Amino acid sequence: MVLLSGGLDSATTLAIAHAEGWDCLALTVGYGQRHAREVDRARQLAEGLGAIEHRVIDLDLAAWGGSSLTGDGEVPRAAPAGERAAASIPSTYVPARNTVLLALALAYAEARDAGAIFLGVSAVDYSGYPDCRPAFVDAFRALARVATRVGLEGRAPEIRAPLINKSKAETIRWGLALGVDYALTWSCYDPCPDGRPCGGCESCRLRAKGFAEAGVEDPLGSDASPGGPGGVRRG
Amino acid sequence: MVLLSGGLDSATTLAIAHAEGWDCLALTVGYGQRHAREVDRARQLAEGLGAIEHRVIDLDLAAWGGSSLTGDGEVPRAAPAGERAAASIPSTYVPARNTVLLALALAYAEARDAGAIFLGVSAVDYSGYPDCRPAFVDAFRALARVATRVGLEGRAPEIRAPLINKSKAETIRWGLALGVDYALTWSCYDPCPDGRPCGGCESCRLRAKGFAEAGVEDPLGSDASPGGPGGVRRG
Repeated sequence: MVLLSGGLDSATTLAIAHAEGWDCLALTVGYGQRHAREVDRARQLAEGLGAIEHRVIDLDLAAWGGSSLTGDGEVPRAAPAGERAAASIPSTYVPARNTVLLALALAYAEARDAGAIFLGVSAVDYSGYPDCRPAFVDAFRALARVATRVGLEGRAPEIRAPLINKSKAETIRWGLALGVDYALTWSCYDPCPDGRPCGGCESCRLRAKGFAEAGVEDPLGSDASPGGPGGVRRG
Repeated sequence: MVLLSGGLDSATTLAIAHAEGWDCLALTVGYGQRHAREVDRARQLAEGLGAIEHRVIDLDLAAWGGSSLTGDGEVPRAAPAGERAAASIPSTYVPARNTVLLALALAYAEARDAGAIFLGVSAVDYSGYPDCRPAFVDAFRALARVATRVGLEGRAPEIRAPLINKSKAETIRWGLALGVDYALTWSCYDPCPDGRPCGGCESCRLRAKGFAEAGVEDPLGSDASPGGPGGVRRG
């Protein structure tokens, strides 16, 4: 059971799970984020990366606000590295997002008797969100053991975060070795009405840094033209 | 922030939070359960018990099956007490339901800077669900501290389960003292096309036992007629 947002990290995570030999069920949650595009990409990725099933469920996490990513406010530009305190959490943080996503994954996993839940969080090249850190994954692991029937029976699904200690460059290299088509992944936080990543938000910045450090070109690019390389379908 | 299903326990919990002086935000999750009726009741209860806001969000936990409560299967009759092993978990268990509900509550609570989350679980007169026990509440409390921005800032919402050690009869007496109109609460698991609780499912059995032990009559009854006492609006 793999949480698949349609971004670079979750696509790599699905490829990792598939390469380990799991029969993968993919789950995409449309949580009121700006990008229906991400859900489209997730469908293509799930198929391309060998998931045997892909579920998309809708959930309106924008109902109560609390984030620039789900609201009408402007997505902030990434601050230069020197200006940003390591401990700060940007306004793009969606309250308790990964808790909600993992809870839904746990429900799906238990209903289908899945042996593991994979999620693509990383605490290296990341935005400082609290629910991307090892402490969060550990706490959810403990919760899964007591919250479920399968947990009480001693067979709670493993909670796997294979990228948690990987830099974006390491993730990209791993994914390329597994055949991930990064042209299908989407990272930008902006609405991107012209179908191009903005290149200026925190997520675009982390992606660009990752490809640069990996020494490969981003097939999507930040100035890729519509209908460009890699069969990218633009929303 | 009070999780309000429309049942007896969550209504009492809202009344308790209100009596403690909290400005209460109520959250009802339509999770693919059989009862749109419960959502209707929740709206009436939220208003009647002084919630300053009530949100209803839809979520299809029936998408992947795994429970007789969200599926098309028959809701089982309660087994006689002597026949049921204490440790067994009935088929009405919805995989990871309370984990999902608390995760959504945590998102709502953090977005609105709520000081506490109240939920109406009890581990006394209950159906044996794993996510109604103190160990579950404790694990979620630990998770909330590391999963959120407010948690990292040392002000995670308290996770309160005031009924966790209360019998159904104690809950009912407490609620009556606080003015809860139990005619508005709904407990039955069955579809009840005629608008009457079935009287035979586990939830009806626990409710009947509670009222009997409390020494008061259930205003809903198991054979209440449509449009009967207490202003009950039938679905």
